[in-house]
Amino acid sequence: GMNPDLASERQTASFSVEKLTARLDGGAEHTRIRRAVVEAIECDPVFSRENQYFQSQNERYEAAVRKAVHLQKKMHEMGWTEDGPEFKYIYRALSGDIAFLLHRIFMRSISVLGSKQQIAKWIPLATQYQLIGSYAQTELGHGTYLQGLETTAVFDITTQEFILNTPKISAMKWWPGDMGRSATHTVVFAQLYVHGKCYGVHPFIVQIRSLQDHSLCPGVTAGDIGPKMNFEHVDNGYLMLQNVRVPRENMLNKFCEVQPDGTYARWGSQKINYFTMTTVRISLISDEAVIPLMKACTIAIRYSVVRRQSKLKPGEQEAKILDYQTQQEKLLPQLAAAYAFHFINNYLQELFDKVYREIQRKKFDTLPELHAFSSGFKAMVTQYCTSAVAICLQACGGHGYSLLSGLPSLYTKIVASCIYEGENTILLLQTARFLIKCFMAASTGQPVPPSVTYLAAVKPGKCPAKNKLDFLSPDVYTEAYQHMAARLISSTAAKLQDLIQSGVKKTDAWNQCTVQLVQAAKAHCHYITVKNFAETVEKLETKAGIQKIMKHLCDLFALHGIFSNGGVFLHDGYISGAQMDMVTASYLDLLAVIRKDAVPLVDAFDFTDKSLNSALGSYDGQVYQRLYEWAQKSPTNKQMSPAYERYLKPLLHNTLSKL
Amino acid sequence: GMNPDLASERQTASFSVEKLTARLDGGAEHTRIRRAVVEAIECDPVFSRENQYFQSQNERYEAAVRKAVHLQKKMHEMGWTEDGPEFKYIYRALSGDIAFLLHRIFMRSISVLGSKQQIAKWIPLATQYQLIGSYAQTELGHGTYLQGLETTAVFDITTQEFILNTPKISAMKWWPGDMGRSATHTVVFAQLYVHGKCYGVHPFIVQIRSLQDHSLCPGVTAGDIGPKMNFEHVDNGYLMLQNVRVPRENMLNKFCEVQPDGTYARWGSQKINYFTMTTVRISLISDEAVIPLMKACTIAIRYSVVRRQSKLKPGEQEAKILDYQTQQEKLLPQLAAAYAFHFINNYLQELFDKVYREIQRKKFDTLPELHAFSSGFKAMVTQYCTSAVAICLQACGGHGYSLLSGLPSLYTKIVASCIYEGENTILLLQTARFLIKCFMAASTGQPVPPSVTYLAAVKPGKCPAKNKLDFLSPDVYTEAYQHMAARLISSTAAKLQDLIQSGVKKTDAWNQCTVQLVQAAKAHCHYITVKNFAETVEKLETKAGIQKIMKHLCDLFALHGIFSNGGVFLHDGYISGAQMDMVTASYLDLLAVIRKDAVPLVDAFDFTDKSLNSALGSYDGQVYQRLYEWAQKSPTNKQMSPAYERYLKPLLHNTLSKL
Repeated sequence: GMNPDLASERQTASFSVEKLTARLDGGAEHTRIRRAVVEAIECDPVFSRENQYFQSQNERYEAAVRKAVHLQKKMHEMGWTEDGPEFKYIYRALSGDIAFLLHRIFMRSISVLGSKQQIAKWIPLATQYQLIGSYAQTELGHGTYLQGLETTAVFDITTQEFILNTPKISAMKWWPGDMGRSATHTVVFAQLYVHGKCYGVHPFIVQIRSLQDHSLCPGVTAGDIGPKMNFEHVDNGYLMLQNVRVPRENMLNKFCEVQPDGTYARWGSQKINYFTMTTVRISLISDEAVIPLMKACTIAIRYSVVRRQSKLKPGEQEAKILDYQTQQEKLLPQLAAAYAFHFINNYLQELFDKVYREIQRKKFDTLPELHAFSSGFKAMVTQYCTSAVAICLQACGGHGYSLLSGLPSLYTKIVASCIYEGENTILLLQTARFLIKCFMAASTGQPVPPSVTYLAAVKPGKCPAKNKLDFLSPDVYTEAYQHMAARLISSTAAKLQDLIQSGVKKTDAWNQCTVQLVQAAKAHCHYITVKNFAETVEKLETKAGIQKIMKHLCDLFALHGIFSNGGVFLHDGYISGAQMDMVTASYLDLLAVIRKDAVPLVDAFDFTDKSLNSALGSYDGQVYQRLYEWAQKSPTNKQMSPAYERYLKPLLHNTLSKL
Repeated sequence: GMNPDLASERQTASFSVEKLTARLDGGAEHTRIRRAVVEAIECDPVFSRENQYFQSQNERYEAAVRKAVHLQKKMHEMGWTEDGPEFKYIYRALSGDIAFLLHRIFMRSISVLGSKQQIAKWIPLATQYQLIGSYAQTELGHGTYLQGLETTAVFDITTQEFILNTPKISAMKWWPGDMGRSATHTVVFAQLYVHGKCYGVHPFIVQIRSLQDHSLCPGVTAGDIGPKMNFEHVDNGYLMLQNVRVPRENMLNKFCEVQPDGTYARWGSQKINYFTMTTVRISLISDEAVIPLMKACTIAIRYSVVRRQSKLKPGEQEAKILDYQTQQEKLLPQLAAAYAFHFINNYLQELFDKVYREIQRKKFDTLPELHAFSSGFKAMVTQYCTSAVAICLQACGGHGYSLLSGLPSLYTKIVASCIYEGENTILLLQTARFLIKCFMAASTGQPVPPSVTYLAAVKPGKCPAKNKLDFLSPDVYTEAYQHMAARLISSTAAKLQDLIQSGVKKTDAWNQCTVQLVQAAKAHCHYITVKNFAETVEKLETKAGIQKIMKHLCDLFALHGIFSNGGVFLHDGYISGAQMDMVTASYLDLLAVIRKDAVPLVDAFDFTDKSLNSALGSYDGQVYQRLYEWAQKSPTNKQMSPAYERYLKPLLHNTLSKL
């Protein structure tokens, strides 16, 4: 049955949930396809995640391999292809709980960096899983700073081979997925040496396990790096190489080559590598940050109208916890952020498509902007979503802390997104470098990309708002964000110049400004997110109540940001203390407004119960029943613990006589 | 061997680490005792935590029971008693990794709420572990709001028994530790009914498992609630009662009783219950929040001087990551907070002792202040430390995400402290209620406790600082915090009154102010923490460099708070934008100063390697070596996964011919 408290929330929706879902999917046709994929996956028992919270790392790994192998069969059965419309929904339907994602990166790196011959040799084998690939870049001692990698590949002209070595323990490959137990091959990034000269980091295809019996190849030491905060299903691995030889043809050589006589040749553009990284960063924003946040919001908000606790008024029934202002203030800004980031992801996808079209016409001008944006938004969105998921978890009290709520695993997984594919602080500093450059250019009248022309127009000013309703005008708050971002960027640029002019070395001056540069880069991304949200709302259909509720969410996202980062808006008096009180008043008013539609707003994300995998978040709201049923399936309830016989029985056995 | 980068950090300490350790312990004598306890525990293999990160929930539980039972023997052997000086260090030495903590609460509740006869009957059995107790308060449907508990206890005058029932699923006891698999008895909190009249929640001793064979007693359904984010070693349980009868004597009856004829009698003060809760909240601040933060800082800071990544200056060696300003800005404020909270914990202990002495003289005047403070600081410190541990984890990049770093388990455990023993938001609202009351009293000239007299003196003003050095004056920043806290409390009180005067019902008005009330309560606690830190520094010995470095940390804690919460200081112009720039400058300067002593400052916390249980944080800094050694012990490396035979071999077996 349906929990009546949850049911009643759905009867008063101010908009059509189905139409909002279609809007989020980019059209009803996409919704139809997505649902079909999800259904096909969820009705197949091989893909079940039912007992996931009870499984060991070994069990999770085995299940993930089983799923990966089965998926190929499934795709064939269903007629899904890699370039078909269904493909992008498979990962979501599986909740990422599948092996061989690094195998895909292995294939992508060969496709992008390999010659035609290399592609012809390796890709068909990999496609059929006749080998399992991995991607061995990160080392124990080096992550984001690739130039520092220590693995070596020395060209031996006599045998026409590269000799790969791990010269010290910090050079051991560490973290690559699918490498700990699965991979037979991997792309190893190593410093190339020819005739004693170092040519920098290059990729080499190396076989690491026997195709006969899966034993390690001679000279190879490899294994699993052990338990992590999440990703139990992935066999992140380590790899040590001792005089491992690969033929000259195994260096990926689309852009450079060591010729038989040892001559090093390089051609083509390096920039395309850049672009691959950018692709990954953009794609993870939705899959690894926004969707998990949407799930966390769905769970926490549904639970918050089922859970009743304490009384708002004496003599009344206990209140739904979502009726407390503090609970609204925890959850509703996260809900607004989920929408904001969904829309900024669309914006980045469009920017990406535009740049991609230009690259195909050999135009690379827009690449730096895309790189700066994808870095900054990857960092900003993953960080925000990580904090937001933590808030959702804590807002569910004790039950949120049970793995059965689904929230702990969402948190422990999303937190990794702040680190992988570029550590967030380093990414924000790359964005900052781009912004400072643009600011300098704009100040001297040089052309800059349209998204940063606002930097040219930094001037003192005052927010024109006269009452709290003025702060519900997108122009008013977008302008405030713009002013704030421009001020942070320009003042940091000024500090940087001052330091350099006072004789501090450029590199030291940069380091002394990095805390503020990070802040400025975040401010820029925050501004663009607000601006894009407001523009998206503007273009939405006015029917079906969707524009109205999205406008409320946009207002909430913007005002929550001003309320929570008051300092940067008040600093130069652009917003006054009295205006900040208006912001606060409008912000708190909005909470009560959006509260009414909170459940329909998460329903519109359209997650199935199986995909949420949460005892607290199911569509029917049968929270307590489900917690109880699920707990009974725990291995901790399967038999009496040996601890009783061993430790307790000897103590308890002669108590009876005394009671 | 010692990592040379870490070794060099220790050669330049500006103060005596040993003397600081003694200061933190409250005297060198305490340090000696603590070390002796830690050594005795750590050299005993029964207490080893060596393989903890590889263990299942079942294995962790068994180990915890083994340790609890062994601890009794150990205490006897060592001559440690519950009222001896060693006792308080045992829990720290075990890192809390032990069973039967709820058994202790079971005993405490009988000691406090039970009659002399009840104490005489139950305590000796419990002391000898001849029964295992638990404390069944929380239900599936009710946590912090105790009045809402739904379990019933109906007095049956004919048999002189109470009949206990779980009338619906939400009334099931849920979460009590030691109950899922261990307990034979538990104190059940239930609504007492006599002759159809409800007398509210009362505690009853109920046997739930057989002393003969540990099977569940008739009418009892109980088990383990399954996996949680941490606390794998604790058997948090569920309990359902169907017509379970206990004799009249099993209601804890020091303060009230149902007499044989069904007459309900109550005597004595209820306030003492209040006081028990307060004790627990204060004791958890150190054990469950400050110590874990100190550990996280130790791990992250040691790692940050071993880890080298990228170059600060071209041509130089790669830099220690702690030399980057952004890394300093992540970690050093958390280090300062650990010290700040250590000192506020001392402050609360002193307040507690004072109140305790007064209570013994039957004076209860100071109880509300202690209750408000313990609630507010429990909430503020646990929340701050939780965020701080998350920052430490993320600051260690990928390796921080490995369980072997020790950081994930610190995080997943500390986050629970925000929820248990009173959910933080609810606690802060209790503090706020006290502050609003005091503010009202102070405004009308009535007497208020000394800690809140500052509320009487709210007036507009300006911070007198003229340059960045002025912000290194404790008077200047303490005054700023005081002004800010007083303003937030007074303006929220004003809003509350305005709403009520405009006709809004009191309860609604309160709810509409709760977001700001929470903010005000936090501001008050933040102010007291800064003030107490400054006063502590004032009293420190000037020799051995300790006062000087503590002064830096106090400045950093205070300025970090202003820098990060700029809005509340700028709001009424108490601090101007120009002054905020001075704060920022001094704050960033301090990072570089404290950076030099960062390692000695965490060394002073005096954690052994075994207690850190971290591959990243050991004293010798052999980070990579240890990660590699520990990973090899993982069960994921014990044998080839069955996934190979089942799923991979069939795919790979005919690849050879094609390569």
